[in-house]
Amino acid sequence: MTYPEKFQGIAVLDHKDWKNAKKVEYEPKVFGDRDIDVKIECCGVCGSDVHCASGHWGDIAKPLIVGHEIVGHVVKVGPNCTSGVKVGDRVGLGAQALSCMKCKRCLNGNESYCPNAIQTYSTPYEDGYVSKGGYADYVRVHEQFTVPIPENIPSHLAAPLMCGGLTVFSPLLRNGCGPGKKVAILGIGGIGHMGVLLAKAMGAEVYAISRTSSKKEDAMKLGADHFIATKEEPDWHEKYFDELDLVVVCAGSVTDIDFNTLPKIIAVGGRIVSIAIPEMSEVLELKPFGLVGVSIANSLLGSMEELKQLLKLVSEKDIKIWVETVPISEKGVHEVFERMDKGDVRYRFTLTDYEKEFSSGN
Amino acid sequence: MTYPEKFQGIAVLDHKDWKNAKKVEYEPKVFGDRDIDVKIECCGVCGSDVHCASGHWGDIAKPLIVGHEIVGHVVKVGPNCTSGVKVGDRVGLGAQALSCMKCKRCLNGNESYCPNAIQTYSTPYEDGYVSKGGYADYVRVHEQFTVPIPENIPSHLAAPLMCGGLTVFSPLLRNGCGPGKKVAILGIGGIGHMGVLLAKAMGAEVYAISRTSSKKEDAMKLGADHFIATKEEPDWHEKYFDELDLVVVCAGSVTDIDFNTLPKIIAVGGRIVSIAIPEMSEVLELKPFGLVGVSIANSLLGSMEELKQLLKLVSEKDIKIWVETVPISEKGVHEVFERMDKGDVRYRFTLTDYEKEFSSGN
Repeated sequence: MTYPEKFQGIAVLDHKDWKNAKKVEYEPKVFGDRDIDVKIECCGVCGSDVHCASGHWGDIAKPLIVGHEIVGHVVKVGPNCTSGVKVGDRVGLGAQALSCMKCKRCLNGNESYCPNAIQTYSTPYEDGYVSKGGYADYVRVHEQFTVPIPENIPSHLAAPLMCGGLTVFSPLLRNGCGPGKKVAILGIGGIGHMGVLLAKAMGAEVYAISRTSSKKEDAMKLGADHFIATKEEPDWHEKYFDELDLVVVCAGSVTDIDFNTLPKIIAVGGRIVSIAIPEMSEVLELKPFGLVGVSIANSLLGSMEELKQLLKLVSEKDIKIWVETVPISEKGVHEVFERMDKGDVRYRFTLTDYEKEFSSGN
Repeated sequence: MTYPEKFQGIAVLDHKDWKNAKKVEYEPKVFGDRDIDVKIECCGVCGSDVHCASGHWGDIAKPLIVGHEIVGHVVKVGPNCTSGVKVGDRVGLGAQALSCMKCKRCLNGNESYCPNAIQTYSTPYEDGYVSKGGYADYVRVHEQFTVPIPENIPSHLAAPLMCGGLTVFSPLLRNGCGPGKKVAILGIGGIGHMGVLLAKAMGAEVYAISRTSSKKEDAMKLGADHFIATKEEPDWHEKYFDELDLVVVCAGSVTDIDFNTLPKIIAVGGRIVSIAIPEMSEVLELKPFGLVGVSIANSLLGSMEELKQLLKLVSEKDIKIWVETVPISEKGVHEVFERMDKGDVRYRFTLTDYEKEFSSGN
């Protein structure tokens, strides 16, 4: 039995053996009247996939199908859908599959902060079914958490925008990134490289901050106006004293960052926003006077409205993120997990060739 | 020799014996051409006085004359003063005595964040003279760091506004406290009680947060609309979930506050601003997901422009802070240090009767 009764995916079956995910067949969630089914064309590989697959964020029900940077075509539309989505549409979905849609946060454009949010994978729905993601032939999701993809964005470049792109775009947007502002992206990885591209496209003067200058050339090509290598310029905090309006921290770990020094390069009233989601055991230590005049916050995924704005910006400015494609399969997933674990990607993987791997599907 | 050659004050001579300050005579700083001399009428007792006197903030040159909530009358005006200040004027000065007046921060209304700021006491001027404060008959200071006191504010109620009042007013003002906003003051002490009065006068809905309900009656009298006793209401973070726009932390210590729980009662995009200046050894520990959607910052003293706005507000709204007066003398200073150390004040001391103690002066 395959679609619509069964989906197929490359699943983590044991956190201890997370790098060797296996192809499995599984039941999708019960089809809700505002759900749609999406036949997946490609899926970005997010750092969260590695954290969840490896068990760093705790034990998750198996089979665990990760992947939440999904692009595909609609093959089924629930009877009560209202968004106008049609069979055949190319849509994307990100890390969030549902929210309560009635709390204050859901009603004021902060549905990604809804305390009852359902993530695209690994979260139990009300009926106990644990959500499953995009390393699979199909995904079933509420229409409200999908967006149409503008025609001029290729699917493999659209996919990483769904989670990674949105995650860095939201704090840029909410904290005034734009002309006349000096904005730094700290950590030039998968999300950070999108941050540089987006901050530049939004009109800011962009500073890329990294430990060494190994990514300097790339950062400048991406559009950075300045590059700060903190381990190679001991006086960086004096050189750039009081200069920045905003620093978005895109590093994978927060303990490696000196948050008692970083505020020095930020103007009074300036902000640090961290989108890092490190291992749960990490603790951020701040000295009492460290954040004088400067704030720090964590930011989650942005809203669906912000995702639409992001896609409009990328489409209009023809922004090209830097993606390496890998065909999906047990071997392909093994390769991306292995290389993500070593940080060996410049700058984002998208799993592709779904048609080939999941040929028995619809 | 007394004024103008010598000043007299109640000085800490040894951090180990800080509660027994002694009356001494000392040379004032060299009179600058934009300096004024102020004959002191009264001086508020700030938590910083205790931190400095006791040596908690490090060793400070002796004789140490603390006190930076000063109100008095001008008795001498430098030849190049431009502010229009005249002999006989009643003026106030706070915790800052000078800034470089040319850096970006000084030029954009953030002179209190100037890296070369001189505090009213305990900071060496360029010539090495260590600044001396308001537990004394006179103070000599640059005219730019003094303000006229509106006629309807009594001196003993004006004094604590100079540092404590300004310190809580600045983050309220900078973070949008006003009608339609829900603002909490955490820590109902000397500064916190002024925070409640001011936030209410600015038009916000005010929440007073304290560990126990011992100050509930006072907080409601001060104008709080809600009172949260965190140790007595185990579910406070659920009851007030997502409710506040701003929390100004006025507690003396940050380690006693659960910054991983506090953000729960704050709306997405809301802010925590701490004006606490705890012992230098304290470290704030944050879990990676603690500040999701919520920022935290430290705030220093406000600007002179903000001090003028504060005095205007207090004058127009006829705000009365709660002050206990103690006549200045070795005994009086001993008493206020002793009681401050125990937290036995509701809510602010002002040292008064300067004329009586320093009768040999001008």
